[in-house]
Amino acid sequence: MWGGRFAAGPSAIMREINASIPFDKALWRQDIAASKAHVAMLGAQGIVSAEDAAEIASGLDSVADEYERDGVPEDWDLEDIHMTTESRLAALIGPVAGRLHTARSRNDQVATDFRLWVRDAMDQADAGLAAFQRALVDRAEEHAASIMPGFTHLQTAQPVTLGHHLMAYYEMAARDRSRFADARDRANQCPLGSAALAGTGFPIDRHATAAALGFDGPTANSLDAVSDRDFALDYLMAAAQCALHLSRLAEEFVLWASQPFGFVSLPDSFSTGSSIMPQKRNPDAAELVRGHSGRIIGCATALMVTMKGLPLAYSKDMQDDKPPVFEAASLLALSLAAMTGMVAETTFRAERMRAAAENGYATATDLADWLVRVRGIPFREAHHITGAAVKLAEQRGVALDALGLDDLQAIDTRIDDGVFAALSVEASVAARASHGGTAPVEVRKRVAEARAALARDGDRT
Amino acid sequence: MWGGRFAAGPSAIMREINASIPFDKALWRQDIAASKAHVAMLGAQGIVSAEDAAEIASGLDSVADEYERDGVPEDWDLEDIHMTTESRLAALIGPVAGRLHTARSRNDQVATDFRLWVRDAMDQADAGLAAFQRALVDRAEEHAASIMPGFTHLQTAQPVTLGHHLMAYYEMAARDRSRFADARDRANQCPLGSAALAGTGFPIDRHATAAALGFDGPTANSLDAVSDRDFALDYLMAAAQCALHLSRLAEEFVLWASQPFGFVSLPDSFSTGSSIMPQKRNPDAAELVRGHSGRIIGCATALMVTMKGLPLAYSKDMQDDKPPVFEAASLLALSLAAMTGMVAETTFRAERMRAAAENGYATATDLADWLVRVRGIPFREAHHITGAAVKLAEQRGVALDALGLDDLQAIDTRIDDGVFAALSVEASVAARASHGGTAPVEVRKRVAEARAALARDGDRT
Amino acid sequence: MWGGRFAAGPSAIMREINASIPFDKALWRQDIAASKAHVAMLGAQGIVSAEDAAEIASGLDSVADEYERDGVPEDWDLEDIHMTTESRLAALIGPVAGRLHTARSRNDQVATDFRLWVRDAMDQADAGLAAFQRALVDRAEEHAASIMPGFTHLQTAQPVTLGHHLMAYYEMAARDRSRFADARDRANQCPLGSAALAGTGFPIDRHATAAALGFDGPTANSLDAVSDRDFALDYLMAAAQCALHLSRLAEEFVLWASQPFGFVSLPDSFSTGSSIMPQKRNPDAAELVRGHSGRIIGCATALMVTMKGLPLAYSKDMQDDKPPVFEAASLLALSLAAMTGMVAETTFRAERMRAAAENGYATATDLADWLVRVRGIPFREAHHITGAAVKLAEQRGVALDALGLDDLQAIDTRIDDGVFAALSVEASVAARASHGGTAPVEVRKRVAEARAALARDGDRT
Amino acid sequence: MWGGRFAAGPSAIMREINASIPFDKALWRQDIAASKAHVAMLGAQGIVSAEDAAEIASGLDSVADEYERDGVPEDWDLEDIHMTTESRLAALIGPVAGRLHTARSRNDQVATDFRLWVRDAMDQADAGLAAFQRALVDRAEEHAASIMPGFTHLQTAQPVTLGHHLMAYYEMAARDRSRFADARDRANQCPLGSAALAGTGFPIDRHATAAALGFDGPTANSLDAVSDRDFALDYLMAAAQCALHLSRLAEEFVLWASQPFGFVSLPDSFSTGSSIMPQKRNPDAAELVRGHSGRIIGCATALMVTMKGLPLAYSKDMQDDKPPVFEAASLLALSLAAMTGMVAETTFRAERMRAAAENGYATATDLADWLVRVRGIPFREAHHITGAAVKLAEQRGVALDALGLDDLQAIDTRIDDGVFAALSVEASVAARASHGGTAPVEVRKRVAEARAALARDGDRT
Repeated sequence: MWGGRFAAGPSAIMREINASIPFDKALWRQDIAASKAHVAMLGAQGIVSAEDAAEIASGLDSVADEYERDGVPEDWDLEDIHMTTESRLAALIGPVAGRLHTARSRNDQVATDFRLWVRDAMDQADAGLAAFQRALVDRAEEHAASIMPGFTHLQTAQPVTLGHHLMAYYEMAARDRSRFADARDRANQCPLGSAALAGTGFPIDRHATAAALGFDGPTANSLDAVSDRDFALDYLMAAAQCALHLSRLAEEFVLWASQPFGFVSLPDSFSTGSSIMPQKRNPDAAELVRGHSGRIIGCATALMVTMKGLPLAYSKDMQDDKPPVFEAASLLALSLAAMTGMVAETTFRAERMRAAAENGYATATDLADWLVRVRGIPFREAHHITGAAVKLAEQRGVALDALGLDDLQAIDTRIDDGVFAALSVEASVAARASHGGTAPVEVRKRVAEARAALARDGDRT
Repeated sequence: MWGGRFAAGPSAIMREINASIPFDKALWRQDIAASKAHVAMLGAQGIVSAEDAAEIASGLDSVADEYERDGVPEDWDLEDIHMTTESRLAALIGPVAGRLHTARSRNDQVATDFRLWVRDAMDQADAGLAAFQRALVDRAEEHAASIMPGFTHLQTAQPVTLGHHLMAYYEMAARDRSRFADARDRANQCPLGSAALAGTGFPIDRHATAAALGFDGPTANSLDAVSDRDFALDYLMAAAQCALHLSRLAEEFVLWASQPFGFVSLPDSFSTGSSIMPQKRNPDAAELVRGHSGRIIGCATALMVTMKGLPLAYSKDMQDDKPPVFEAASLLALSLAAMTGMVAETTFRAERMRAAAENGYATATDLADWLVRVRGIPFREAHHITGAAVKLAEQRGVALDALGLDDLQAIDTRIDDGVFAALSVEASVAARASHGGTAPVEVRKRVAEARAALARDGDRT
Repeated sequence: MWGGRFAAGPSAIMREINASIPFDKALWRQDIAASKAHVAMLGAQGIVSAEDAAEIASGLDSVADEYERDGVPEDWDLEDIHMTTESRLAALIGPVAGRLHTARSRNDQVATDFRLWVRDAMDQADAGLAAFQRALVDRAEEHAASIMPGFTHLQTAQPVTLGHHLMAYYEMAARDRSRFADARDRANQCPLGSAALAGTGFPIDRHATAAALGFDGPTANSLDAVSDRDFALDYLMAAAQCALHLSRLAEEFVLWASQPFGFVSLPDSFSTGSSIMPQKRNPDAAELVRGHSGRIIGCATALMVTMKGLPLAYSKDMQDDKPPVFEAASLLALSLAAMTGMVAETTFRAERMRAAAENGYATATDLADWLVRVRGIPFREAHHITGAAVKLAEQRGVALDALGLDDLQAIDTRIDDGVFAALSVEASVAARASHGGTAPVEVRKRVAEARAALARDGDRT
Repeated sequence: MWGGRFAAGPSAIMREINASIPFDKALWRQDIAASKAHVAMLGAQGIVSAEDAAEIASGLDSVADEYERDGVPEDWDLEDIHMTTESRLAALIGPVAGRLHTARSRNDQVATDFRLWVRDAMDQADAGLAAFQRALVDRAEEHAASIMPGFTHLQTAQPVTLGHHLMAYYEMAARDRSRFADARDRANQCPLGSAALAGTGFPIDRHATAAALGFDGPTANSLDAVSDRDFALDYLMAAAQCALHLSRLAEEFVLWASQPFGFVSLPDSFSTGSSIMPQKRNPDAAELVRGHSGRIIGCATALMVTMKGLPLAYSKDMQDDKPPVFEAASLLALSLAAMTGMVAETTFRAERMRAAAENGYATATDLADWLVRVRGIPFREAHHITGAAVKLAEQRGVALDALGLDDLQAIDTRIDDGVFAALSVEASVAARASHGGTAPVEVRKRVAEARAALARDGDRT
């Protein structure tokens, strides 16, 4: 009961709502790193003495060792990771600790820590995506010539190759990597030295701290630097799009694993069984990837809403920036790993896929194309002739290439027996060798390019 | 690194993504209660023997005692709270534990547990809202006649009473309570006995379990019962609207606490100070309430997205229903308590508010109304006459009621000195005694009605 | 180019961003009705003379006739529907028109108009849902005993009846109707007379105008009345949940219409064909219903975001309340009509559904239940015995009821030939006659209750 | 009534829900351009004869002329802009029109048209942002030394310069431009030639059509090309972030225009007046910019939700991609133009800003910094000494620099009269000359850099 809750006294509620240490302790490595860069610069600039700077740096190392060993203590009275660390530092090295906070403020400190964290999350997403791409490329090469039905409106439309289908997700992942890379470039400016909001009168060297922390340079406006969370939004939006893509693939795995489709046997490692129905493999991991994408979209929405109406500069609303980012990063990491594993370990039932492709008159377009290409008939007319042929095949209950030549010629005399070469699913996919088409030869070409790109970019992070 | 993560083996990733015990252990009380109701019914119906039923019930009590004392163990291999409890029960009482799961499934079990949890959250929201309303009513009565500027477009428009302003939030809270109450009524159907998805062949008595758990009755369709999360969405949407209202009030506290406004002194208990600027009171709690509303909206979005495309019946995506609900409930509870405390403890600076109301020609409408009412001039014409008077006062740099009668008559000869009685801020608010108007007499009437309603509904939960 | 755009002069941009007449003209009927109620009350209260009131009322009728005949003119300089109508009224009847705006403001006027519009939209949603329910009930009765596979995780789990499956959507629709009804009750308070924000000094009778417009009474607080858009949010959230349900059914139609499922033949009236593949029926309508649900969720998000941080009372941001509501209402109306038609006219391929139900060992649970019920074996043990039987059947490539008694007894000697009666899909569904279960007898009972409810509530609106 | 609606017959509902021509006619220029590029390539490759290609191209020009002159006709039976144009082409030039659709499909056609439209919208956003930046830079230079209070938590914190404050928005706009530029690069791949989903067997030259339409090259995977809407999401997310920034500035204008702040006089051109209160300027444009940002976020949400669960390749749900993008683009264009105008034309009341900066002990940090810098006192200790000084000044009711030296020395003897030079607001801002700080010299430096960048990038589009 909140009545009861309130009985604890208003200050108890305030302590609870105000404390960010329960979640921002995740920033401890970044906080230590930024403090070390800051104090080294203060020493180099003569703002604190070399001895004091060394003592503080060494003290920070001790705090880091303690955190590494024992975890970060959660004392709500110390509010956040910054005060927690500074307080512990003071306990270890005494009043000289008070010099660390010269020429900075918690506002630029948290902006710096959080950027460093998000930058790492971007790098991890890139690494996870690269692993996902490698799994896709491997399976695509293996199945460059495996034929499956291509769907539009979830209706069988034309035969495609499974390799081509998998490589579509390679492209999505490539755009995701590009999006994280762009976001990283944009984020990689250092807010440290912006102080509370106005900059500082101390003769600091912001280029030095920026360089020490791996940033491209310092941010250009102190008010903007402490009130900007674009980098977090950029991350969340890239994560949301990446999650969308994973959710689409997960949707396909769920479909393909259903009994009516039967296109895949999911690996034990990414499905749950049922002790009562041992043949059953529930695609739990794929379903959870879909569910996680909903939550990641929710995280992106949350931060947009929060930032939407804030005047400059820092407002405490911005403390609510971290939980959505931390949650999204955790869900995305797991989703990427799960889909990578699922791609790598799933058994594709190529014969079931091929059989499905042979139903549904998937090569009707090939007949029309043959009429255009070989007989010079305008496409729209060829379209109508094909419709008549499919209708006849359907009435007979046979495949298109099981109609006789006389049947076809009764529909249009311009058809000859050269047409049959075009009507098999193999011929259909082989023919579609236009740039980016489904033909095995095109798929293999694209696989080779992808392997080269992965070799080149593999160690981007 | 997810590469590294993946090195732990696919099954490690699957265990992590699949396990819900880290969060669904929050359901343990509901899970025990539902199991006890179920086994009592199984015994009453003769589906299990009375002895077995008693042994299982007693075993469940022992498990509950352990949880109460030691917390719920998190063993990912046991996946969720249901398996965790069943496994512990089996360890305590042996194979007879296996009879508990007769005529049910985890699908109806989790649907039941989660409904019970959400129902409690609705009741807690109602209690929190009632406390918030009481605080509003108290302060509204105290300030029934305190005058402040009423704003439109954040421009001073007409004087209002602070009591009236606070009672506007009472109305919002009343709608919020109504929304939670409606949601509770709609949610209060028991899914237990729907089994996996199709119901069961055992002669169960669903009305008995429903009654035992405080539900109005059993759900009407087993497929719907296990795949429905409307109750969670209803909760989230009611929570989102409630959070919106709190965010609006929080926005006002932030404005009013700013130096240019200076309408309130925030209590120490809900603000943070600055050791360097002891006069400063940062409205942290209000800002966090605004921030939390963004996150609660994000939670509602997340579950909508997740549920949007799911076929019947249960899909594992639905496991992602709980984290957004748990998060929203926690944020809402804290937000309600914080705003209640802030309303109760803030010092309203009535003299600053009144002074602001006297600037800005807030009684211009009263002049126009006087012209209509006393002189029978059409409203639009009265509007123009008033505009001329305000323009003159502005040129002179004086308030409207500081113009002389000759000045006013120079503008329109129909004005006489009866007008001055209408132009003070007291006269202005006193005049607006239409139903729901800002007049102190109306505010006090509404306060009395509100007190009566609170006395009547106060123990609704 | 916005440079070019700006060249038109700042006032051109202001006119464009400020004008709401392009969309709020949709409120014209409500605006006329509210003005007529207002002026009748002004006359009855003696605030305007009876003659003036009659002349204004008659003038409003003339304006309405013109709108009906010629549409509402869009003059951006008149900004909105209120000024457009008042301006036209003045042109028709002269300065007496200026008396209409006595004791009201655009703020309470638009709040009233919009509530009336939203109330109609709620009634229309209810009517659309009732039609949808009737279609579901008709088809459910027809297919009360048609057997299909019940899915969990989109894996075949247990046989269910198609009638039961359809009735699950009846339940969702019932909750949707309940949600719209609750929202309507909450919305049905009249803001008129709240004036700009503070009420009015004129002796108005708010109960009279409220009654004339079909409201339950006047709103209780003038500040709240002009700054509240809860009714619009309630509508959008109910619409979003309704759209979610329609999207889930649409998802199923898309799945069922796919070649691998083949559970339905979509009607020509709700699918598009392909001239090249005449056998193809693209489930366009179902896909668009899914797409529309995304947009309706977007509309709900938009208004939440907009309202989230607004201080009292009216702010112009609130002009952005109407486009999302109008859009959602239009999309929802179309979605409901499309799904109603699709339910009514689809051909369910019962034989394909039944065949799918017989694959996948869907009656394994029935074997386990038989062991518990007849032999008194604890459920978890029965579960394991069943697993062994399914494994054997799978190895043999046969259905569960095609195993011999000796095979089954080799697994567990307690099995006798009574078991076979439990293993057919008909027996399985017939057995699940618990309240809300899938048995035909239960489905027919629920259908009868639903018909009675529809007869009772059918003319709610 | 939807009952009535349905009475029109199911096909009427299907026609209405299926037709996209009411909104996709906005794509007509793109559709004509893409068709012309396609047919030129077909001719060059010998897939159609040169004569046919020329006749089709000329026919397309005629159709374009008609559209330009008369608008695009809305015939729902022709469904969309593609069929509308092809049908008109056939009417004009006869059966040869049927050759245009060789080697393409509506799936790659709409993907191409929509990319071209979105690319234009990105370019327009860039141009709008550049204009916005120019306005900011002009006003920032003008007010490089104007002093205002810098706020954190909307509490007066430290003095800043108005120029610095405005330049913070320049930085946000720069990130917005960078985001649109990245999105444009990623979008600038041509889907044309991907055909329905699998590519084509015709010997097309996709590099030629890509080049003709200004793309960097063809897309790499045909399945991805027709089912990808990342470019639209990238646009919406960049638009949402841009709208967030505009909303933040709009929030500040609304605050600053309020009577308690009084920091600005809004221009007539971007505010609405009140005939009754001529001194009033409602910041309608700013409020609408805030409201529009909510709707743009809703648009982004809508498309994320819609795309989230779609399997490959094209699904009709994707037809719901265009309305949110069109709506967002229109709202963003107007918002950018309005904020540009507001920045350019607002009168900043520098004296009111400066007076506000002198209240609130905004230079307390400068005292602390002086103690650190001049006396070498650790920051945390200096912090406490300052607190004592501010407390004394507050008790006396005077500004910090109005305390006597003896008062200050009574607090800490290390203070001497050198301190007073640090305590004026001018000294405070002048001191903060660290990189990106608020000092006028820093602001002017950044303004010069910004002017150079604008000159360089000004004609990017």
